[in-house]
Amino acid sequence: MTKTLHDLGEFPLIEKIRQFSPWKKGEVGIGDDCAVIPLGRGQVQLVTSDSLVENVHFLRQKIHPFDLGHKVLAVNLSDIAAMGGTPERAYLNLSLPADLSTSWLDQFLSGLQHLGKCYNVTIVGGDTTGSPGPIFINLVLQGSMEKKYCRLRSAGRAGDILAITGRVGDSHAGLQLILRQGELTNWEIVDHDFQFLIDQHHKPTPAIREGQWLAKQSGVHSMMDVSDGLQSDLQRLTQASKVKAIVSLDKIPVSSSLKKLAKRFDWNAQILALQGGEDYCLMVSVAASSFASVARSFERQFHKPLFPIGNLERLKTGETDGVHYIFQKQKWHPKANSFGHF
Amino acid sequence: MTKTLHDLGEFPLIEKIRQFSPWKKGEVGIGDDCAVIPLGRGQVQLVTSDSLVENVHFLRQKIHPFDLGHKVLAVNLSDIAAMGGTPERAYLNLSLPADLSTSWLDQFLSGLQHLGKCYNVTIVGGDTTGSPGPIFINLVLQGSMEKKYCRLRSAGRAGDILAITGRVGDSHAGLQLILRQGELTNWEIVDHDFQFLIDQHHKPTPAIREGQWLAKQSGVHSMMDVSDGLQSDLQRLTQASKVKAIVSLDKIPVSSSLKKLAKRFDWNAQILALQGGEDYCLMVSVAASSFASVARSFERQFHKPLFPIGNLERLKTGETDGVHYIFQKQKWHPKANSFGHF
Repeated sequence: MTKTLHDLGEFPLIEKIRQFSPWKKGEVGIGDDCAVIPLGRGQVQLVTSDSLVENVHFLRQKIHPFDLGHKVLAVNLSDIAAMGGTPERAYLNLSLPADLSTSWLDQFLSGLQHLGKCYNVTIVGGDTTGSPGPIFINLVLQGSMEKKYCRLRSAGRAGDILAITGRVGDSHAGLQLILRQGELTNWEIVDHDFQFLIDQHHKPTPAIREGQWLAKQSGVHSMMDVSDGLQSDLQRLTQASKVKAIVSLDKIPVSSSLKKLAKRFDWNAQILALQGGEDYCLMVSVAASSFASVARSFERQFHKPLFPIGNLERLKTGETDGVHYIFQKQKWHPKANSFGHF
Repeated sequence: MTKTLHDLGEFPLIEKIRQFSPWKKGEVGIGDDCAVIPLGRGQVQLVTSDSLVENVHFLRQKIHPFDLGHKVLAVNLSDIAAMGGTPERAYLNLSLPADLSTSWLDQFLSGLQHLGKCYNVTIVGGDTTGSPGPIFINLVLQGSMEKKYCRLRSAGRAGDILAITGRVGDSHAGLQLILRQGELTNWEIVDHDFQFLIDQHHKPTPAIREGQWLAKQSGVHSMMDVSDGLQSDLQRLTQASKVKAIVSLDKIPVSSSLKKLAKRFDWNAQILALQGGEDYCLMVSVAASSFASVARSFERQFHKPLFPIGNLERLKTGETDGVHYIFQKQKWHPKANSFGHF
């Protein structure tokens, strides 16, 4: 039987591409949030790329084109945030069906421009082509920063405290609501908590300023964005840093809106927060001795807490990297992994 | 009636994106072969992006994945060549259906790697996602060069001689043969000329070294690659340079293979050469006083001619930019424009 990409899975596919591409000295390539290219004089260029494909990442009838324009830039900004960098310019690649309305395009570009203005990002290139059906959107974003502040996901150290910059699970709960809209009453649809969760899915806020601030704190060792789901991203951080993580499920912060809706739909809010994706907050590992002071300054700076969720530990002999969960002081095993694309 | 992208057309669509994106001082954005970003110390970074979409740019059953991997890099290399730059690194964005075989992917990556090795290009990032059907491939390529040698398409001057670095029309003839394969005899399919034309379509050769050499000749004012078809690209060069072009249809160079096949299928080889696309040779405008010496040195360097096809002239008052054709010493008007994507 022919082996397909479905059999292979997403991460082995990325590994395959990586094997074809040894990068040059001083460059960080596939595997972190951004590629890191030395520019000289202590500066590096950051480059990241994200695609949104109709019927894979979004449904045309369910998302306003303005929000989609916002989202494609926001998810890329989040990767620049995850290194601690400053975004600069974008390359927009669109493959669009010929029967798409020009007003759809205008609104899409407006959403992109609106968010771009907030961060001084301009579109300087890209490619536009037809599509035989689905809308394909890809955005490549360049940024830059001082090399010494660049925070890689491979720099986590045993003893570090793991923390995240925001509540998780809202975006995935929002997606569930979008998919169930037919079952909902009109009253529910106008409810504040419903709208809040749907907005978290459609219009995520990239943590650019948080990332820049955190990268400059000497106690912050590693940083990445929470995009594929906390569970999956925890796995990647521990793999890259060659450590294990001990995470308390009870400590993973969840919004009051998510709690309320979880009750309504009989969801387990903590598991949804762990396994949902597209949160776009940041995850950091911070030297234990610095954590209290970093967290205090973070809260003063951004008027929101830095949430500790666990810590990193040294691997014992024979132990492979991984994530160990604790729930109500007991060991706990998650059943399924978060969502793959294939 | 709702206005669609089909009604709008490709170039107004690009213009729409450009309007949303004023670029920063010293940057060249949408409108040339590459975006040009100042790096300081007299250097610029070049960035280009090209997408290949199944059933728009290729048919999965008609192109070997190795050739497709070659082609997606080659078309991007051609844009770097058009500025006179040196290619450096690539970002590969793939949206692939789950039922695609892993051997397809391996061969695709092999084709990409094989050409990448010739020019020292590595893949350092990108994004991989699923697709609901068609294969969507995008590649973003970075390069660099000394700013003083950068050749824009807007730098053509009245009096310049227009020339191209290769014969045109072969790729489009190859595409016609690929689409007609069912009608062809086995004898025709193995014929050298058939294979040559199909190869020109599937495995174009980017003119990197020619571009670097031409950019360093002081008589060479403007340069671009011939990718959308000579007729369309001539229009863009004259628009960007605010001049008109006088082009002799008889002088447009055509290969002996194309001449032979044109006879067989009753094609007009000159019109096919003018209106076909994906040639990926370079077009330059050269100061008339330098042309003879540049052409002589080019031929010595690359063992092939630099083909003069016409010249640039000043616009008279009230005249808009444009291209005027001469065929057998008579004025001649092309009937249809080359192919748009929408």
